[in-house]
Amino acid sequence: MDTLANLEKTIAARSNADPALSYVAQLNSRGIQIIARKLGEEAVETVVAALAGDRDELVGEAADVLFHLMVLLQAKDIPLADVMVELERREGVSGLDEKASRNPEE
Amino acid sequence: MDTLANLEKTIAARSNADPALSYVAQLNSRGIQIIARKLGEEAVETVVAALAGDRDELVGEAADVLFHLMVLLQAKDIPLADVMVELERREGVSGLDEKASRNPEE
Amino acid sequence: MDTLANLEKTIAARSNADPALSYVAQLNSRGIQIIARKLGEEAVETVVAALAGDRDELVGEAADVLFHLMVLLQAKDIPLADVMVELERREGVSGLDEKASRNPEE
Amino acid sequence: MDTLANLEKTIAARSNADPALSYVAQLNSRGIQIIARKLGEEAVETVVAALAGDRDELVGEAADVLFHLMVLLQAKDIPLADVMVELERREGVSGLDEKASRNPEE
Repeated sequence: MDTLANLEKTIAARSNADPALSYVAQLNSRGIQIIARKLGEEAVETVVAALAGDRDELVGEAADVLFHLMVLLQAKDIPLADVMVELERREGVSGLDEKASRNPEE
Repeated sequence: MDTLANLEKTIAARSNADPALSYVAQLNSRGIQIIARKLGEEAVETVVAALAGDRDELVGEAADVLFHLMVLLQAKDIPLADVMVELERREGVSGLDEKASRNPEE
Repeated sequence: MDTLANLEKTIAARSNADPALSYVAQLNSRGIQIIARKLGEEAVETVVAALAGDRDELVGEAADVLFHLMVLLQAKDIPLADVMVELERREGVSGLDEKASRNPEE
Repeated sequence: MDTLANLEKTIAARSNADPALSYVAQLNSRGIQIIARKLGEEAVETVVAALAGDRDELVGEAADVLFHLMVLLQAKDIPLADVMVELERREGVSGLDEKASRNPEE
């Protein structure tokens, strides 16, 4: 899982680069609305790929979701590690299944 | 980033557990439509948190996106490592910026 | 299509009602973030219903999208008529097909 | 509200037109996945416009949601009137507020 750690560094390094040379810089120069929109759109594409696409499409869309989620977190100055801590916290809270009490409808 | 590797194992272990005891098993028993829907809804909540929420809300929603994305991948028998390979492949393709040529509008 | 005109009046009348008695008032009392989130979630459910659901599910989800879109417009003081004017304007702009020049990828 | 009735006729008339000349035909030729994806993406853009955009952006995005919802319904052979009947049915079911008992979290 070093991929995400490396990707996080790359995204941080590029966020203030020349928008003409870097997609990450381009997203950042256009603002948080565009970054958030892209994340939402990639998630929609992942939903469609999961229900009606093939394996490669789903892998590609999942990568897009991860990538844009990380660009969003970087733009909001949130280290990915903070999200990992939250995932671990939930795991720890209830032992065998951190979300057994959650209703999937919520 | 061992968190995701551990989470992937946990999700796999729980996917066939008793739905009454495990949220992961509950999602799996309800089918891919429900899992995909949950991912899409968490992404919408992340968009809202990024634009109108506070830091803690965004961390929580980002964790929800990651969690449900991993449940979706597991349900489709796709190892997270395959998504990582795709992220690395893109990085390698174009050196300085794998997506410089991409239009954010797409 | 008087249904939407009637619905618009109903939504406006209820927006400041007691949240304990009215779903519309409840949404409005919780704020635009919740209303926007609901619209996004209903759209995701419509996507899933279109790809993996039956006819009744799709009709129900489409109704949910329309309903929450109208609650959102009301909360932002935008008459539905303004959206209709925009739809008509597009139609008029290019005659045979107002969007022939649009790329569906956008 | 004749706008939607007219739009429905226009969409039906164009659905089998030359994809090179009609955006509606282009969407139909690409399939229900693309149409559903477009609806989801326009909804995400509406969420963003409601939270961070101006009035004109929101009107434009709301028009996009309505337009693509109607293309989707046409592609699934569902008359808009059926969705209106569903909206009216909900209204009738509970009198003063058809959704007072619904939890916005759902």
